[in-house]
Amino acid sequence: MNRLTTIGFDADDTLWHNERHFRLTQDRFEALLAQYAQANHLHDRLLEAERRNIAHYGYGAKGFTLSMIETAVEVTDGKVPATIIAEILAAGRELMAFPVECLPGVTTILGELSRTYRLVLITKGDLFDQERKLAQSGLGDLFNAVEIVSEKTPSTYRELFQRHGTGPQAAMMVGNSLKSDVVPALEAGAWAVHVPHELTWALEHADEPASHSRYRKAASITDLPVLLSKITRNP
Amino acid sequence: MNRLTTIGFDADDTLWHNERHFRLTQDRFEALLAQYAQANHLHDRLLEAERRNIAHYGYGAKGFTLSMIETAVEVTDGKVPATIIAEILAAGRELMAFPVECLPGVTTILGELSRTYRLVLITKGDLFDQERKLAQSGLGDLFNAVEIVSEKTPSTYRELFQRHGTGPQAAMMVGNSLKSDVVPALEAGAWAVHVPHELTWALEHADEPASHSRYRKAASITDLPVLLSKITRNP
Repeated sequence: MNRLTTIGFDADDTLWHNERHFRLTQDRFEALLAQYAQANHLHDRLLEAERRNIAHYGYGAKGFTLSMIETAVEVTDGKVPATIIAEILAAGRELMAFPVECLPGVTTILGELSRTYRLVLITKGDLFDQERKLAQSGLGDLFNAVEIVSEKTPSTYRELFQRHGTGPQAAMMVGNSLKSDVVPALEAGAWAVHVPHELTWALEHADEPASHSRYRKAASITDLPVLLSKITRNP
Repeated sequence: MNRLTTIGFDADDTLWHNERHFRLTQDRFEALLAQYAQANHLHDRLLEAERRNIAHYGYGAKGFTLSMIETAVEVTDGKVPATIIAEILAAGRELMAFPVECLPGVTTILGELSRTYRLVLITKGDLFDQERKLAQSGLGDLFNAVEIVSEKTPSTYRELFQRHGTGPQAAMMVGNSLKSDVVPALEAGAWAVHVPHELTWALEHADEPASHSRYRKAASITDLPVLLSKITRNP
C-alpha cells in the first residue's frame, strides 16, 4: 500500500455535536404546531420538505428553517398564525448560534495526529454556518486545509486528497455518515472510517460496506491511533 | 512593479446579472404586501432586516428569503396570512433558480485573458447558490481556481492571491462592489478595477478610492485588455 499521509475529517457529529441541536429545534417546531398536527405527522412532512428542498437549498440550518416554515403553512392548510412563523424564525436563528461543543477527546487526538499526518476538514453544509462552528470549536489551527463543499461525491474526495495530500490512495476519511463520508471516499480509492454518532439525520443513512478492504469502524475518534497503527503494520 | 500574473473576478453583477433578480423578487414581495404597507416603507424595513441578519445568515438568497418573511411578519404586526408566506417562499425558490445570463463580452474576454493570466473567481454568498450559477454560466473551465468565501476582507485577498497566484502585489481584483472587491483588495496590496453595474445592493456601497495609485475604473469588463496593457507599460 501507499503510506497514509492525509486524514480527512467530517465536522458535524464527528468533531462536534450538531444533530442534537437540529432535533431540539424540531421538538420546538412540533410543540409550536401541536394544536394543528401530531408530532409524528409533522416529523414526516418536515422530512419530506427537506428532501424535496435539498435541490433548491442545499444542506444547512437556513434551508432547514425555510423547510420548517413551508411545512407549517402546509400542515395548517395555510392557517398558521404569523406569530408562529416568527417563533420558527427565532428557533432557526438560535440553531445558527448554538454553542459548539467538541466530542470527547477530539482536540487531543487531532493534536496528536497532526504531528504525523496532514489533516483536512471536509464538511458540507452552509458556508457561513460551518465557518462559525469551526471558529468556535478552536480546532482551526490543527488542520492543514479546510474545505466546505456543497456535496460529498467520489470526485470531491479525489480532488481534495490530491490537492491537500498525496492522492486518495494515501488518504483516509473519517466521519459519522456512511452516505457522505464513507461510501464516496471508498469509491474515490481512499480508506474510510465510520465513527457512528447516536444521532444521524435520516437523509444520511446508507448500507454499511462492511466487507470492503479499506473500510473500518471505530466506536470513537480516540480509537484512530490504534486503528492506524494496525493498518500500517498489516494493510 | 511585479509583473501581473493573476486576475481575480467577482461573480454577481461582474460576470453575470444577479441584483436585478433580487430587485424583481423584492417587487413581488412589495406587491404581495401592498395592502399592509407602502413600497418605500417595506423597502426600508427589509433592508434593515437584511443588515441585522447578515450576522446570522451571511449573504445570499436563502438569507434574503428569511429576511422577507421576517419583514412580512413585522410590518403586518403579526397578521400576515400564511398564504402570503407561501408566496414569499415560492418567490425565494424562484430567485434560487433564475437563468444565469453573462454580461456582454464576458465569455470572450475571459477566454482571451486566460491565455496570459491565472484567473481566479472570488465570490461571496451562498455556496450552493453560487456553484449553481457558475455551472450555468459555462465559465467554470476558464478559471484556474474558484473560491466561494463568506466575507471579502484584505486577508481573504492576501491568502487567495498567495495560494492561487504569486501574491497580491502581482494580482488584480475586478468587480462591481467598491466595498467588497476594490477597497479590501487595494488594502491587501493588489491592484483593483471597479466595473460599476447599474444595480448595486445598498449594503455594498463605499467611497471610491479615486486617487489610489493601484485603483482603476472601467466601464466594461471588455476594457480590461487595454487597461492591462497601459498598466504593464507604465505602472
